[in-house]
Amino acid sequence: METKQALRLINSNVRNLAPYHLVREECEIKLNQNENPCDWPLSVKQQAADFCLERPWNRYPNFIPDNLKTDIARYIGVDPQSVIVGNGSNEMLLVLLLAFASKAKSIIICSPTFTVYKLLCEGGMDSRTVYVNLTKDLEYDIDAIKAAVTANPESLLIMCSPNNPVGNTISENDFKSILDIHTGACILDQAYVEFGGFDGVKLLPRYPNLIIVRTFSKAMAGAGLRLGYMAGGSEMIAEINKIKLPYNINFFTENTASLILNNTDWLKSSVKTIIEERDSLYKFLADLPFTNVYKSAANFILVRLLPPPSSLSSSKTKKELFEHLQKDGILVRDVSSYHLLEGCLRIGVGTALENAKLRESIQRFFG
Amino acid sequence: METKQALRLINSNVRNLAPYHLVREECEIKLNQNENPCDWPLSVKQQAADFCLERPWNRYPNFIPDNLKTDIARYIGVDPQSVIVGNGSNEMLLVLLLAFASKAKSIIICSPTFTVYKLLCEGGMDSRTVYVNLTKDLEYDIDAIKAAVTANPESLLIMCSPNNPVGNTISENDFKSILDIHTGACILDQAYVEFGGFDGVKLLPRYPNLIIVRTFSKAMAGAGLRLGYMAGGSEMIAEINKIKLPYNINFFTENTASLILNNTDWLKSSVKTIIEERDSLYKFLADLPFTNVYKSAANFILVRLLPPPSSLSSSKTKKELFEHLQKDGILVRDVSSYHLLEGCLRIGVGTALENAKLRESIQRFFG
Repeated sequence: METKQALRLINSNVRNLAPYHLVREECEIKLNQNENPCDWPLSVKQQAADFCLERPWNRYPNFIPDNLKTDIARYIGVDPQSVIVGNGSNEMLLVLLLAFASKAKSIIICSPTFTVYKLLCEGGMDSRTVYVNLTKDLEYDIDAIKAAVTANPESLLIMCSPNNPVGNTISENDFKSILDIHTGACILDQAYVEFGGFDGVKLLPRYPNLIIVRTFSKAMAGAGLRLGYMAGGSEMIAEINKIKLPYNINFFTENTASLILNNTDWLKSSVKTIIEERDSLYKFLADLPFTNVYKSAANFILVRLLPPPSSLSSSKTKKELFEHLQKDGILVRDVSSYHLLEGCLRIGVGTALENAKLRESIQRFFG
Repeated sequence: METKQALRLINSNVRNLAPYHLVREECEIKLNQNENPCDWPLSVKQQAADFCLERPWNRYPNFIPDNLKTDIARYIGVDPQSVIVGNGSNEMLLVLLLAFASKAKSIIICSPTFTVYKLLCEGGMDSRTVYVNLTKDLEYDIDAIKAAVTANPESLLIMCSPNNPVGNTISENDFKSILDIHTGACILDQAYVEFGGFDGVKLLPRYPNLIIVRTFSKAMAGAGLRLGYMAGGSEMIAEINKIKLPYNINFFTENTASLILNNTDWLKSSVKTIIEERDSLYKFLADLPFTNVYKSAANFILVRLLPPPSSLSSSKTKKELFEHLQKDGILVRDVSSYHLLEGCLRIGVGTALENAKLRESIQRFFG
């Protein structure tokens, strides 16, 4: 068989995906991946290192990571049987699509949002996807979402609140008004919930079709661990668990995530600082000649710079700002290629010192 | 919505799966999961522990784990662009099914074999699966496999060699004779290849439709790490990589797997010992009144005990042996519910000391 012929054996939905081209950018101040800017204290890290020495590497992890599930359940206020853990929220999303996606049903995704939904729904599952645009102000368009779930019975609705890369949220009442008429399942991705917005977990008893997805990569300062989890009704979780891969997290992640959850004082204080820094950064940015600065309930802020003729805008472009910051050792995320985000950059919230350098650099940019 | 109604939103192929019921068995000698019985030396583990202290937990892993891919590529003799790494071979199998499985094509699986293929093909992907039984002697039925690939053009063929839980292999010539007529893709799972059988990697240049899957969970003594990888032609791998989840392995696994690959002397000596122990265990078992003891190219041996009226068999049952061993602190795997494996136990090869205790216990069982 020729290589060309072999490549044609790959499903067209996968072949049609654009390959990733991520250029690794080294910089002093990294504000491009919405990470918690602080690392865990050495005293906590030392416990994980000790465990690496004790724990035999040659043995499989626990078949069910009971201790970690119990710790997560306590942290969010559910039963351990209502929780599944996996490699980042990415794996949880894939498991949920294996459980819910099918040719017969549509998937409803708001746009713009986290790009992995599209990758998995269209590239992975070859699903029929219905996109609902955010409003002109980049808020959720509640009426349009309601129209979409009504027009697509038993569809899978995926929502992200706070929403990456915008920072907008859906209110609890609006969300309930959608779930009250929705006849399909709903995945609510709350990767940034520690920074703002309502807590979806308390709605689980009322909506058995709701599954919440969360992560250790943002507020929890554990992006390097790759741990995510989902929570839902225990009967729903038992069914979904059937298609989760066995032994999907390693002993290091299992043990370290529990360590993190047993040090919530550090976490709370870290999150509090990030929220204060975000709010002060927002005030600073809102006073500058951006075309738009969007309110955010997450640990990043979206700004827009459009070149003339847009009359309200600065004459400077997002490309110029991106490069100016980069020259100052500050890396932000260019999200201008996202639907509706022309001229937009997403700026993560760093430490107080990093944010001061950021402000100083932006100030100099606008002159 | 009622819970009952919500549960019906889950795809029927998932709902129809039996839930896992793994009872955690504690025992002194663990021969039930085909792990390498030896842990890594403390000097290697110390390097991993040091890395846990240095490496910031709050930052994402490398987007592409270049160093690890290079180390694996060197270890198996391919280019780094021919390799994808993931959470155990399980994740690699799922990614391959996302790439190759579709409603239009069948998947061909030999039986009995590793159960995760069936879980993923039928439960995960809802694929049409064609099973080809092993022969009466539990060898691959080459003619039947050829007939199946001929009857199912462009089907996905999944083979495991050495094959779990039997230990049988396919010869290089037989495998080539199948690939020469197969018009679809082929996944060759070589989780146990360090213990025997031919090296499929050298066939990659000749068969661009071939993808090899391997793991760090067996010979590499890294079951706790959850690392698997696949190798194939670089163009094929580039396409498959599009649907792999980003950031799918954590910094600990990435770094530790490279440590392992930089200590191949320990590995080689460990594998050599396991092979010697397996061969001596085989000789011991073959002389006992089992109904069958199967030759194995892996790090386990399958034995069969059938109760009368099977005239050649011992009058003792596999249930009695299982419980006898357990009472002696030895845990083996009961695989008697597998297709064609009535009365069978799979016994892993332990350390010399563990195998001596095993032999002594089995000797006492037969009296």
